[in-house]
Amino acid sequence: MKGFAMLGINKVGWIEKADPIAGPYDAIVKPIAVSPCTSDIHTVFEGALGERTDMVLGHEAIGEIVEVGSEVKDFKPGDRVIVPAITPDWRSKESAQGFSQHSCGMLAGWKFSNFKDGVFGELFHVNDADMNLAILPDGFSVDSAVMITDMVTTGFHGAELANIELGDQVAVIGIGPVGLMAVAGAGILGASRIFAVGSRAALIDAAKFYGATDIVNYKNGPIDEQIMEFTDGQGVDRVIIAGASPEIMKTAVKIVKPGGVVSNVNYYGEGDTIPIPRIDWGCGMAHKTIIGGLTPGGRDRMERLIKLVQSGRIDPSKLITHKFHGFKHVEEALLLMKDKQQDLIKPIVYVE
Amino acid sequence: MKGFAMLGINKVGWIEKADPIAGPYDAIVKPIAVSPCTSDIHTVFEGALGERTDMVLGHEAIGEIVEVGSEVKDFKPGDRVIVPAITPDWRSKESAQGFSQHSCGMLAGWKFSNFKDGVFGELFHVNDADMNLAILPDGFSVDSAVMITDMVTTGFHGAELANIELGDQVAVIGIGPVGLMAVAGAGILGASRIFAVGSRAALIDAAKFYGATDIVNYKNGPIDEQIMEFTDGQGVDRVIIAGASPEIMKTAVKIVKPGGVVSNVNYYGEGDTIPIPRIDWGCGMAHKTIIGGLTPGGRDRMERLIKLVQSGRIDPSKLITHKFHGFKHVEEALLLMKDKQQDLIKPIVYVE
Amino acid sequence: MKGFAMLGINKVGWIEKADPIAGPYDAIVKPIAVSPCTSDIHTVFEGALGERTDMVLGHEAIGEIVEVGSEVKDFKPGDRVIVPAITPDWRSKESAQGFSQHSCGMLAGWKFSNFKDGVFGELFHVNDADMNLAILPDGFSVDSAVMITDMVTTGFHGAELANIELGDQVAVIGIGPVGLMAVAGAGILGASRIFAVGSRAALIDAAKFYGATDIVNYKNGPIDEQIMEFTDGQGVDRVIIAGASPEIMKTAVKIVKPGGVVSNVNYYGEGDTIPIPRIDWGCGMAHKTIIGGLTPGGRDRMERLIKLVQSGRIDPSKLITHKFHGFKHVEEALLLMKDKQQDLIKPIVYVE
Amino acid sequence: MKGFAMLGINKVGWIEKADPIAGPYDAIVKPIAVSPCTSDIHTVFEGALGERTDMVLGHEAIGEIVEVGSEVKDFKPGDRVIVPAITPDWRSKESAQGFSQHSCGMLAGWKFSNFKDGVFGELFHVNDADMNLAILPDGFSVDSAVMITDMVTTGFHGAELANIELGDQVAVIGIGPVGLMAVAGAGILGASRIFAVGSRAALIDAAKFYGATDIVNYKNGPIDEQIMEFTDGQGVDRVIIAGASPEIMKTAVKIVKPGGVVSNVNYYGEGDTIPIPRIDWGCGMAHKTIIGGLTPGGRDRMERLIKLVQSGRIDPSKLITHKFHGFKHVEEALLLMKDKQQDLIKPIVYVE
Repeated sequence: MKGFAMLGINKVGWIEKADPIAGPYDAIVKPIAVSPCTSDIHTVFEGALGERTDMVLGHEAIGEIVEVGSEVKDFKPGDRVIVPAITPDWRSKESAQGFSQHSCGMLAGWKFSNFKDGVFGELFHVNDADMNLAILPDGFSVDSAVMITDMVTTGFHGAELANIELGDQVAVIGIGPVGLMAVAGAGILGASRIFAVGSRAALIDAAKFYGATDIVNYKNGPIDEQIMEFTDGQGVDRVIIAGASPEIMKTAVKIVKPGGVVSNVNYYGEGDTIPIPRIDWGCGMAHKTIIGGLTPGGRDRMERLIKLVQSGRIDPSKLITHKFHGFKHVEEALLLMKDKQQDLIKPIVYVE
Repeated sequence: MKGFAMLGINKVGWIEKADPIAGPYDAIVKPIAVSPCTSDIHTVFEGALGERTDMVLGHEAIGEIVEVGSEVKDFKPGDRVIVPAITPDWRSKESAQGFSQHSCGMLAGWKFSNFKDGVFGELFHVNDADMNLAILPDGFSVDSAVMITDMVTTGFHGAELANIELGDQVAVIGIGPVGLMAVAGAGILGASRIFAVGSRAALIDAAKFYGATDIVNYKNGPIDEQIMEFTDGQGVDRVIIAGASPEIMKTAVKIVKPGGVVSNVNYYGEGDTIPIPRIDWGCGMAHKTIIGGLTPGGRDRMERLIKLVQSGRIDPSKLITHKFHGFKHVEEALLLMKDKQQDLIKPIVYVE
Repeated sequence: MKGFAMLGINKVGWIEKADPIAGPYDAIVKPIAVSPCTSDIHTVFEGALGERTDMVLGHEAIGEIVEVGSEVKDFKPGDRVIVPAITPDWRSKESAQGFSQHSCGMLAGWKFSNFKDGVFGELFHVNDADMNLAILPDGFSVDSAVMITDMVTTGFHGAELANIELGDQVAVIGIGPVGLMAVAGAGILGASRIFAVGSRAALIDAAKFYGATDIVNYKNGPIDEQIMEFTDGQGVDRVIIAGASPEIMKTAVKIVKPGGVVSNVNYYGEGDTIPIPRIDWGCGMAHKTIIGGLTPGGRDRMERLIKLVQSGRIDPSKLITHKFHGFKHVEEALLLMKDKQQDLIKPIVYVE
Repeated sequence: MKGFAMLGINKVGWIEKADPIAGPYDAIVKPIAVSPCTSDIHTVFEGALGERTDMVLGHEAIGEIVEVGSEVKDFKPGDRVIVPAITPDWRSKESAQGFSQHSCGMLAGWKFSNFKDGVFGELFHVNDADMNLAILPDGFSVDSAVMITDMVTTGFHGAELANIELGDQVAVIGIGPVGLMAVAGAGILGASRIFAVGSRAALIDAAKFYGATDIVNYKNGPIDEQIMEFTDGQGVDRVIIAGASPEIMKTAVKIVKPGGVVSNVNYYGEGDTIPIPRIDWGCGMAHKTIIGGLTPGGRDRMERLIKLVQSGRIDPSKLITHKFHGFKHVEEALLLMKDKQQDLIKPIVYVE
């Protein structure tokens, strides 16, 4: 089969690879639609995962099952499925303890384009199909379905980790697609005012669509000063970091109240450390919780997100700003994520 | 002053009482708008609180401060305020432990028309003004403000107690004004599908407005059978009871999944016991949590709800179906709550 | 192989059955030591699980592995293992949601002597060995090991469900072996005073050994009156029910404070309903949480309990009052549980 | 009255000050026994709180009430009381939200020798006596009582913030008196193995007394390497930091598992930032929670700790290694905390 791969750091291209093989609990899927992710950019152009050679990229896809292993019960060839970016090993100590994302190792629930070939191939392999796939319901938006696999679940996880209480004021720092879903997630997890921190017009419009009540454009002055002014010097109850460099932690801790939470779903790709500001953290005693985590994945998570879309709580299809028809456009779509244009949120590639 | 009072069980009328007196931390308020509550009906016509003589009724009001005690810092005469139905003693062991509703005794955070005269007087007394009042913001809907004091906070508390996880399916049993706010609360606390159980057309319309995705009309068959059919035999993740007799617990426990929660904000006025169905509760081992509680009140709670309204997460003004101008209409409004008409959700009385 | 079985309701005896067969993830174990449980009594003599024919009894055992399936990685024949009473299906929606006890159905994580032959056979089958077995450490007490499989984990779960806060006062109702472990569990989960409710001298001594500070003998007067006197009329913060009939719920709800928790690990074998007392439950509004649940099982749970024993937090071997040498004594040991003598807590049968 | 005061940075001495005055809710107390704290050292010799002039030091005391305000209900002159180091404003938004330590500002629940004169005076002032004092029970150890006010509550809070699950492995870094109480707290909040990180022989002995199962002496090699070896490369579930410089965060995050918690009750007195190690924190996605907080105080907290001592869960009197008779020895006792000797844990000064 063919796949669009990372050939090495800074190099991508189409390659020929052997077809994937399904173990007894697995499935082989051919993609219907895929989307590149900033993580793919980190992987290829920043070497975030370290050297990888000839590894097929991509971890956001919906597809059609072409083969299932002998022990798969709930799925069969021909089924159209949503494939989460994170496909844990459910038979693991970490899953039993509630952290399936880290099954068999920190972050190791993330397999596509990390430990094995990703979804930008003519076929791809899904471990433990019964636990990791979800049926794409009839009539469900393809665009929404692809967004669920990673952007929605990751952004919403930022809101979950923030442990929002009814009526909390929340700041979301970074309003790329994950940040936008953190805004939307905060709105359906109890937030009142949501301060969206960003600058691009397209993102600001989308942030308002997804429930932001106030916009903090960092081009207009320091984020912390603006937030403090908006909140009469009180700060916010929760901060969700969805994009920035390590230094952002100083701002996040500063603007959050004692008793508040700084939640992180941002991938930090550089620097040795992420700095907690000592004084603003109450010299260690301010009860400002700092928590960051990889999104959960798997079937139950996808089915919950499907129901949220069907119930009208969220319309993730609005994230998609650029549409490509034909698998060959994957490279073009990927490079869009690298050289972010003013009007870009997320591209999608319909395979056929 | 004059007040509309419970003269005794089954008897109401206007009486003359001495003006209330503010202690050093208290405020005296004259009402701007009030609303009668089903609880007033329980109090008067079912003797729910036991015998009460010449006690002014009412606990849902906004008003204007006419006097404050010497130690009140944040409020002054002339301020227009939202007055929560529940006004706790914040200097109490229970408040320190996080249950201010039960400060100084079970349910004793509820004072108006319970331990002291309520808000259907020309003046009423508010304990600990700095901790229990919230400024009515300029331009804020009077209708929404009155609904916040009890209906919104109580319904939302039902959703809070249900401990909803992202994407949970939730059944709300009873869709009077509290149930409608439980529906709305579930929707902004993470629910996906919301099954509203009721039968009156006006309530069903309102339930859909507030986010119900499915309607279960008990006139069409047993609630549990309908819910099980809607959920492919799985049951729901959470149940919120917002109106019914004790027997409803059998249904609630039956339709909730193992690991789920039955949350109650219904006042049970009769019967010795509320029956947990043994088999459906897994003979004691199903992890089906049962929790019921009086809403929190006080200033911080009101300010959070104000922000939720201002942020557009909820529009409680739609609860009001009947409007009266002039304080003298309080009795008429109250009796509406007793003899519920088809199109009634909540009445409001604008005092002037 | 031979096994000691339930032949039908009220009938037990040794029978010959085919040897169990290991699937690819399973193990076959021969018992080293076993203990009968009150649940076995419920099963046989009360028909608690409904009619069962020729089903081998028993679910508390340690043993030696005699065979493992092809996919088992962490265990091999000859390994000595602790076998939890609850052996979930880890690849299930319920396990992914944190309720492995209810994997594939309410209470369905309990398989031994319920859905399949139990451990009172010359051989028994364990599903998903890597996830459900734990190595018996060298030098670890056999007695403690057998107690871990059910009594310790169940009693401790009662304490876990009670959600004890530091310094809470806790009442444990019923001080059979599970109740004693609830006492011990409360003591290492933050309780200060622990009121043990029971009457037999042997149990009272054991309750004190395991950390009870006060004894409430129901022969000396109503439990609620004694508890209220002990607590200056305040009631306790948490109640754990570990043995009683449904009526006990009235007492439990009465003696717990608003904001408190009634936790149940008792199996209710009779009655249609379990009565929540309306008034003491604040007419539905007292924030007295009621929760009951089957213990979690599986490998991680067993390994945690092993570490607790090794760390000296708990010595479960003191539960064992009657010791039998030779598998043939299983019946005798079982009947001890039926006709509870004054000095009985738990019997053990060393198979060889 | 006389008091032992900070005259300015690096300067201490006895001074004459006006007697404190009780407001209507307050009490005036004369000390029975006091203990200096490392925080006093930070305050005086590191200028941790900034410049303070002629401020009486000390925040650990028990005493006898000499005067109460007109509104105090539960206490009277002559009562012997335990005085928590943290005496919150209970009528505050922060207290209503569950963070009384930060009432009226970050860390502002800490008043003694911070915002007002401390307890090293012939008399001292206690705000809101009914909410902030606890009766010293007859026969209760004076030594234990003084330790409860700060060391026990702070160390236990470290264990609380760690959110220990039953059987977790916990590392406590720093085993001064707070760290020792974190060890003890972990042991009664569910920990199995407790790794105590320290080096002084007296502290190591005490750590074992308080429940440490393993000692990690940093003089024997890097802490992280030792912990990883002890845990077969798995790391611990929880880390409690109770003493160290900001760099310790690198170690703490490294040795904790994904899904684990780093809890801090250490005061960081220097450096601009506290460094989170990027890679060990999973580039922001490891679910390693970082939380630090000032202990809660107030009456309910003290009463809970009293009950824990009375129930035999903890014996804090063993912390005291040096005893002084006579108030004049306060300076000597304080300087002991500055120049820590090998055998010092905590000194106490009996006033008379």
